[in-house]
Amino acid sequence: MKNIIEEYHSKINEELKKLNFNSKPKELYDPIKYILKMKSKRVRPVLSILAYKLMNEDWEKIVKPSLSLELFHNFTLIHDDVMDKAIIRRGNKTIHEKWNNNIGILSGDLLMIFANDLLSEISEKLLPKILKRFNEIAKRVCEGQQYDMSYEKENSISENKYIEMIRLKTATLLGFSLEFGGYLSNMKNSEIEKLYQFGELIGIGFQLKDDYLDVYGNEKFGKKIGGDIIANKKTYLSIKAYEIASREDQKVLDYWRSNKKKIINEKIKRVTEIFNKLNIKKLTEQKINLFFDNAHKKLDSLNFDDYKKKELKNYLKLLLNRFI
Amino acid sequence: MKNIIEEYHSKINEELKKLNFNSKPKELYDPIKYILKMKSKRVRPVLSILAYKLMNEDWEKIVKPSLSLELFHNFTLIHDDVMDKAIIRRGNKTIHEKWNNNIGILSGDLLMIFANDLLSEISEKLLPKILKRFNEIAKRVCEGQQYDMSYEKENSISENKYIEMIRLKTATLLGFSLEFGGYLSNMKNSEIEKLYQFGELIGIGFQLKDDYLDVYGNEKFGKKIGGDIIANKKTYLSIKAYEIASREDQKVLDYWRSNKKKIINEKIKRVTEIFNKLNIKKLTEQKINLFFDNAHKKLDSLNFDDYKKKELKNYLKLLLNRFI
Repeated sequence: MKNIIEEYHSKINEELKKLNFNSKPKELYDPIKYILKMKSKRVRPVLSILAYKLMNEDWEKIVKPSLSLELFHNFTLIHDDVMDKAIIRRGNKTIHEKWNNNIGILSGDLLMIFANDLLSEISEKLLPKILKRFNEIAKRVCEGQQYDMSYEKENSISENKYIEMIRLKTATLLGFSLEFGGYLSNMKNSEIEKLYQFGELIGIGFQLKDDYLDVYGNEKFGKKIGGDIIANKKTYLSIKAYEIASREDQKVLDYWRSNKKKIINEKIKRVTEIFNKLNIKKLTEQKINLFFDNAHKKLDSLNFDDYKKKELKNYLKLLLNRFI
Repeated sequence: MKNIIEEYHSKINEELKKLNFNSKPKELYDPIKYILKMKSKRVRPVLSILAYKLMNEDWEKIVKPSLSLELFHNFTLIHDDVMDKAIIRRGNKTIHEKWNNNIGILSGDLLMIFANDLLSEISEKLLPKILKRFNEIAKRVCEGQQYDMSYEKENSISENKYIEMIRLKTATLLGFSLEFGGYLSNMKNSEIEKLYQFGELIGIGFQLKDDYLDVYGNEKFGKKIGGDIIANKKTYLSIKAYEIASREDQKVLDYWRSNKKKIINEKIKRVTEIFNKLNIKKLTEQKINLFFDNAHKKLDSLNFDDYKKKELKNYLKLLLNRFI
């Protein structure tokens, strides 16, 4: 399995390199080359390829249009980093940090334009529908980012609002990536819709797992434990804990949230203690499993032979293992 | 003439109102409604309509897709204002000033998405070509904005570089607005190309005239005299003056450029004195006339009967008169 995925990766990276980012002015194009060179799993084009392969073997021909998903995703990363004042992205300085805010804004804009530009090579029969859906999804992603920023300022938000936010911001584009491959293979609409829903479900699942691993992960396999707690980031764990906490425990959480002193380890320890007391680990695991179970059911309901769906299932497993 | 243009305006504004900017979250959609309600001549969709009318009478049907030009233009205004830290836009607070920077970035992104979204309603035969050109032009606009920002930091730039910058940033979209109407009327490529070039020439002409009026305009008809001088903005006048000035006069210009004291009237007076001494008024007028003369020649070369081109010519006159 790993080998074929690596084949996709190298073809994706090869096609990315062919896009002409060598134009002038350099200060506008260099940041784009910089972010596209960062280590990345290229999940979105890979999902598009896997969906396409449910019906076709000649996946190479859809790699180029599928790059629009990757470019759009990177555009959102650049602008989100500007808005969130993030300093590090995938182990590298963010663009606005390495250059400046204006270059972050403008190179992000340009990348979104390249994403749309790539769509223009899709066959004219499919283009109107795909362009429409692409931009519908793009709107949802912006809405999700706005909710994310707004919620950061609120004391408490409901579980439903949180999940709707991550659905918009993250999961819709993963769903659409599969949908995209479906369109390009001329799949029936009923199956395309299932693929979209499958993608949305795993998208939410992955985001919840990301939240989970910030507290209950293994440092060996990813970012430092407790980063979200230190940054007071809203996560499934933090909003769930706040929701079910006693008034007394809420006060403790409030205290640590507003604590400006740099007693990092103490803060992580105390907040995690409350999570543990409230059984947040178990509750989050159940929620994650719920989304992945539903995703698997959706995949099972797809009208393709099991051996056709196998690659998609294996890829999902691969993505999940990365987290363990 | 005025009446038919007003008819276009009201149809354009009517179609703009029909676009659904009432979604949530409000803090993301309100800024879009806010900027689209500002007083505007809607030059880009009007140019598209006028090009379309060279071959067809039923202009109403292309108003909606032509809004993509207006939306894209407004997206550039929002982001440019963020990057330039501008406070006022068309007599109103800029979006990032009324809300905040992040809302400026994200609502601008969303508006660009709406611009692309509108294109998806173009007939499938025309869409691939139009989408490709739309995004090519969009790239040029971003490149122009980057040059504009970079040049602001430089002491002197050449006339050619300056004109190339305003061509990219402003004129290409005006050229494309005419091209857009040409495509929608199924015009021959040779004529579409002439329309584009005509639009580019008037675009450069208008920008130069804008520069000119900052110094030699009538306060009654527009912005305050000398605003660009106070802001040390690169204009045709300032770069031309610097280019042909003696070393001594360059020093005077440098002095006023770096002068931080708030002796506004004195600064305008002294810089204008140098402009006058160097005959910049005349030189700029000649340059403006050159572009408008070439634009008229391009229009004359269009293979349509004169009475067909009359409306386009009258509109140009109308736009020019606004400046006098």
